[in-house]
Amino acid sequence: MTKENILLVGSGGVGTMAAYALEYSGKASVTSVLRSDYARVVDKGFTIDSCDYGHVEGFRTTNVVNSVEKAKLFGPFGYIVVTTKNLPDITDITEVIAPVVTSDSTIVLIQNGIGIERDFFKKFPKNAVLSGVSLIQSVNRNGYVEHTTQDILKLGYFDNPSLSKELQESICRKFVGLYSNEKVDCEYDSDVKFSRWRKLVYNACLNPVCALVGVDTGRLEIFGGVDSIIRASMGEIIQIAKSDGVALPEDVIEFMIRSDDPMYFKPSMLVDVEKKNFMEIEVICGNPVRIAKKNGVEVFNLSLIYELLKIIQLKLKEEKRLITVPKVRPVPA
Amino acid sequence: MTKENILLVGSGGVGTMAAYALEYSGKASVTSVLRSDYARVVDKGFTIDSCDYGHVEGFRTTNVVNSVEKAKLFGPFGYIVVTTKNLPDITDITEVIAPVVTSDSTIVLIQNGIGIERDFFKKFPKNAVLSGVSLIQSVNRNGYVEHTTQDILKLGYFDNPSLSKELQESICRKFVGLYSNEKVDCEYDSDVKFSRWRKLVYNACLNPVCALVGVDTGRLEIFGGVDSIIRASMGEIIQIAKSDGVALPEDVIEFMIRSDDPMYFKPSMLVDVEKKNFMEIEVICGNPVRIAKKNGVEVFNLSLIYELLKIIQLKLKEEKRLITVPKVRPVPA
Repeated sequence: MTKENILLVGSGGVGTMAAYALEYSGKASVTSVLRSDYARVVDKGFTIDSCDYGHVEGFRTTNVVNSVEKAKLFGPFGYIVVTTKNLPDITDITEVIAPVVTSDSTIVLIQNGIGIERDFFKKFPKNAVLSGVSLIQSVNRNGYVEHTTQDILKLGYFDNPSLSKELQESICRKFVGLYSNEKVDCEYDSDVKFSRWRKLVYNACLNPVCALVGVDTGRLEIFGGVDSIIRASMGEIIQIAKSDGVALPEDVIEFMIRSDDPMYFKPSMLVDVEKKNFMEIEVICGNPVRIAKKNGVEVFNLSLIYELLKIIQLKLKEEKRLITVPKVRPVPA
Repeated sequence: MTKENILLVGSGGVGTMAAYALEYSGKASVTSVLRSDYARVVDKGFTIDSCDYGHVEGFRTTNVVNSVEKAKLFGPFGYIVVTTKNLPDITDITEVIAPVVTSDSTIVLIQNGIGIERDFFKKFPKNAVLSGVSLIQSVNRNGYVEHTTQDILKLGYFDNPSLSKELQESICRKFVGLYSNEKVDCEYDSDVKFSRWRKLVYNACLNPVCALVGVDTGRLEIFGGVDSIIRASMGEIIQIAKSDGVALPEDVIEFMIRSDDPMYFKPSMLVDVEKKNFMEIEVICGNPVRIAKKNGVEVFNLSLIYELLKIIQLKLKEEKRLITVPKVRPVPA
């Protein structure tokens, strides 16, 4: 059997475990593009402590490269799996993968957020784009991956009207087959749009509010923020989803509020703020607000939260010297 | 001529310059209650660099004490001037001054915020309470006071229905006389409620938003926050003021937005956050929102901003060990 040739871009906690699953079955040959961990992984591979696979030393994908340009040597790739942090305001990932996208490539986005397929369809209008909603907890710290909750992955497709539904479904089911093994819970999701909006009920509310005020979800609740901010904000997500054709049940609010029990849990965006990393504000906050505006849904909380976070992101851009402000504050003439 | 006997509580940048003005004229004898600066001031007084009075070494009020209880030795006081930071969620200043309030005392609040008289009228229903709106820039750092813009003080009274307007006005005008000299711009303000709401247009919007996102007013504008958040929030203050009987002109919005030009200015609440000091959120944000709610004015921005800041204040309370959270996150039964 010929192995399926797969490119993986983004070896964080989620991406490395995806690479592991794809190589584990023996059905895929993965080329991974590494940046900061490249030297360490070439030298001694990833060290993984996984609730699914146990302790693993020296994990490397079939090929390891440090740029997409170099990955071309090992192409073409049937699937290009994108597991980077989703930061369109910082990096245009469509540009990053463009050199390896062919007419036969399927792009697999295992990433947070809503409306994340649009830039890909704009640039690659003939390609299938899969939608992966991951529920894994896994963190990569300089080549050491700590994977703490089962790899649960729902996969469907972002509908590309230039391709038949049958074709897109079969392309997706094939990828599910490549990813699946007895350890992971990977399944074809015929309503992945629902799953994506559902996950956003947590991510678009608890993530940004905890990031803004600097407390975990437990303290947010004890200090009154769940009652004063989160429930209403989650209600706004439900209204936007509805305007986008997705009917989320009301009880998803309580489910998400309770989903960290009994942990004082720091959502990823709070961790980002603390580590001075960029936050996924455009795909988690900005896109929902833009969909709301387009569809005439009023979302007072989510709009203001997004506007506040945009300023924090720009401040961080200035701190990282990606932008500068004039020495003297500009004033109107 | 007998000097007027005055108690001053709160010798920060504003309070120390108020004490200086009151002693300067020779018409008042000030007893000041110091906390953190007590030892230094007893030893060598305040050092002041003042745009109004020049360089001053060794300034002390007539009496210096380290508690209100000890101040009683020098009473009774005709005026009790409160120039503390206004933090009713942290310290009940009505309790602090209670030991020295007599039936003849006038309480003078030279403090930020709206609705700040209520707790005083509740506790001291027969006393006159004056309203001081200060536009001074003055900072006290461990006994060294840097005073950088002229001491402009508007004084009126919070109307106490149990006292005649004539009496309250004459009590207030007398205090203006004690405070006035050729350096300061201190005047009786027959519409001090207007001045207080007007100042809040800046303080309730630029202060908290800069504190939330961690940038000065110049960066806030460059990064888009003045357009996306501040104008609308200031509009909400105008609506609340209107519901409270105060007609602020629309152009106050542009005036306040431009009032720091051409500085990259850090409002006091941002400085508080950076120094991990408590913020005046209840009198600057909470009271306006409560007035809005009572009067049926919808203030989406100000409400959410207030709720966010409340959580940050509680987080700081926890960090300062004024409150604790349970070791294990409580979950519903």
